[in-house]
Amino acid sequence: MSATKVLCSIITIGDELLIGQTIDTNSAWMAQELNKVGIWVHRRVAVGDDYDSIWNTLDEEAAKSHIILITGGLGPTADDITKPLLCKYFGGTMIVHEPTLQHVKNIFEKVLNRPLLERNLKQAEVPDNCTVLQNPKGTAPGMWFERAGVIFVSMPGVPYEMKSIMSTSVIEKLLQKFTPENIVHKTILTAGLGESFIAERLVEFENNLPKHIKLAYLPNYSFVRLRLTASADDKLFLENEVLQYHNELKELVKDIIVVDKDETVEKVVADLLVQQNKTVATAESCTGGYIAHCITSMAGSSSYYNGSVIAYAYDAKEDLLNVNHDELQKHGAVSETVVTQMAKGLLSKMKTDYAIATTGIMGPGGATPDKAVGTVWIAVGNAQKIVTQKFNFRFDRRKNIELTALNAFEMMRKFILENG
Amino acid sequence: MSATKVLCSIITIGDELLIGQTIDTNSAWMAQELNKVGIWVHRRVAVGDDYDSIWNTLDEEAAKSHIILITGGLGPTADDITKPLLCKYFGGTMIVHEPTLQHVKNIFEKVLNRPLLERNLKQAEVPDNCTVLQNPKGTAPGMWFERAGVIFVSMPGVPYEMKSIMSTSVIEKLLQKFTPENIVHKTILTAGLGESFIAERLVEFENNLPKHIKLAYLPNYSFVRLRLTASADDKLFLENEVLQYHNELKELVKDIIVVDKDETVEKVVADLLVQQNKTVATAESCTGGYIAHCITSMAGSSSYYNGSVIAYAYDAKEDLLNVNHDELQKHGAVSETVVTQMAKGLLSKMKTDYAIATTGIMGPGGATPDKAVGTVWIAVGNAQKIVTQKFNFRFDRRKNIELTALNAFEMMRKFILENG
Repeated sequence: MSATKVLCSIITIGDELLIGQTIDTNSAWMAQELNKVGIWVHRRVAVGDDYDSIWNTLDEEAAKSHIILITGGLGPTADDITKPLLCKYFGGTMIVHEPTLQHVKNIFEKVLNRPLLERNLKQAEVPDNCTVLQNPKGTAPGMWFERAGVIFVSMPGVPYEMKSIMSTSVIEKLLQKFTPENIVHKTILTAGLGESFIAERLVEFENNLPKHIKLAYLPNYSFVRLRLTASADDKLFLENEVLQYHNELKELVKDIIVVDKDETVEKVVADLLVQQNKTVATAESCTGGYIAHCITSMAGSSSYYNGSVIAYAYDAKEDLLNVNHDELQKHGAVSETVVTQMAKGLLSKMKTDYAIATTGIMGPGGATPDKAVGTVWIAVGNAQKIVTQKFNFRFDRRKNIELTALNAFEMMRKFILENG
Repeated sequence: MSATKVLCSIITIGDELLIGQTIDTNSAWMAQELNKVGIWVHRRVAVGDDYDSIWNTLDEEAAKSHIILITGGLGPTADDITKPLLCKYFGGTMIVHEPTLQHVKNIFEKVLNRPLLERNLKQAEVPDNCTVLQNPKGTAPGMWFERAGVIFVSMPGVPYEMKSIMSTSVIEKLLQKFTPENIVHKTILTAGLGESFIAERLVEFENNLPKHIKLAYLPNYSFVRLRLTASADDKLFLENEVLQYHNELKELVKDIIVVDKDETVEKVVADLLVQQNKTVATAESCTGGYIAHCITSMAGSSSYYNGSVIAYAYDAKEDLLNVNHDELQKHGAVSETVVTQMAKGLLSKMKTDYAIATTGIMGPGGATPDKAVGTVWIAVGNAQKIVTQKFNFRFDRRKNIELTALNAFEMMRKFILENG
């Protein structure tokens, strides 16, 4: 069987997605997993808890895609209408699915340790013309329908449950049905040069790219991610071909490259620390724990990360980081002197090899006559040397925090490479 | 002019949204802002950087909605195809827009302090049949088109730029064009009872709701958000009507209510602290800075938040939080003894009124024979009293961290109400 371009639409159901109460993180995960096996998500549609909208969207997407993955609307409450709708859409009748019934009873008895309600038993009812997909992490099962060669899969919107159904059965079943072509993505993260300037350098490179390889620019302020995407039948040939262009691209941006794969800067720093068997700690004022959170979100971070002192108050800076009282009063918390002392104090308190320290004004309040919102000092270093840099961000609080962290990791990365 | 139900589709353009490299946070913000002025987002569609897909999606959504808001694909690089496509779609010709040209020159000279490239000048070209919307925060202007009574607005995908164009011109111009009916949302956040059990209590309430008021359940494990949504012509009447049902609902869930509006638990804690003029600090092991990040993401948090000690390593727990060495060795870091000592040590170090402390095993590694992944101890308290609770979460690392924080804030909220 020859490989084909297999197209998928994701339909997410729920008013919460349309009024802005919930951010859809499911679709990104699903798209990543599908891409790995060569399936293209070419459309994502979010619709509300509305019978006609859902029905029409099923019709429309079925005309465009081989696979329709549907999430949401499978809960036990009255606003959950997906299951009866799908039953009618495919002309089925609701029946009790015995294995699911046992599974639901089991969850309530053994995991939740709570009495089972009539409405929970409803979770075990499914249309008689679907294949039931077990939900290892919850009560609402997944449902697999086929019509006119199009596959429809309905899953709960709870991320943890959707992921477990996708991983245990959906992907595998899709690959029994389709032989997708291969999709290869290769990414490079750069720092310090705007996308226009990078594009100028890459004019010739882009012109020479074959038609089946696309170059995309994903700017995030002074960081730009460059992505090569290609699809074709022959996996080995494709991978070699993209690798060649990836190497060429790396050479063209070698002075600004952070990492040559789809990774975060903090992951690059983490890998360097593990390689060198070194440790780091953080002293955060303006980033308020965000740097620590980025590090500790990575599994295994306890092997190189000792901890952080979030010194929001002046007293905390003095008591926990040995910042000098008079200098703090003289220069203010947002100063090169204080950020340097924070880094030094941290190294002596935490006894790590490296330190990262931040102090700044994230806004909207806190500006002084000589220090605008967005003024930030970052220090990185070790016992021998501390490097500092001043930044002036001009965004909102969350973005200023994020950019401070991003730049702190980038400074730490360079420091380790130069002084490690 | 009588009010009408004004429907909006959001189209987001970019392969990065379809391969899972980027999570779409723009749409949620846009939907919130549109809801405030009575405009319903009833569909959100994400498509790739593909000419035909974008063209067809414009056709399809124009048949369904009064307003089409488009983000993405307006950058200066070759993968940005939205502008020439829209120019052709609406039968226009590209011309240089003088005010935008001045604006672009100004940004490069005064803000970025960088030379202007030919491709940046292209940013000032627009179709001659659009109304240009100034982009106060970037180089790519917004574009407003009208055809057959349908409004199309194209904006950059960079969140900061999109937000500034929406706020400075789009919303205002839409309200000159349409007189939308009013939309009212009222939310209640509950804790400690599953959605099935809440639904049992609310059967009669739900049956008695008028047709134009909908009740939605948004579960997040042991937290459930209940939302009443209604739309109608008469704003004052509608608000009073929804308020009545909201009060009735509050009465029905009064034993499990956290807050009677669309707020986070940490915001409720913050408000209590401000009201009482009290301060808090945090000692985090397993949450690794996430609790601090939640607090410091809120503007003004420095008035009640002194800081955090993220004691990831054993040594840090002893040195920075005075945890007793022998007890740490005896009970292990994930124990009631240690979490209590962390809270007490923190209070003496940070000199705050209240303390929150966490310790646990977030996974995937770190389990011991007697402590599974997901085992967490949380302590909250003041100088007089420390309250502790053990949890067993069963999710992945990020979710375990999030749930630990959520429950810590809920414990703190209760403690302040009972002991503040």
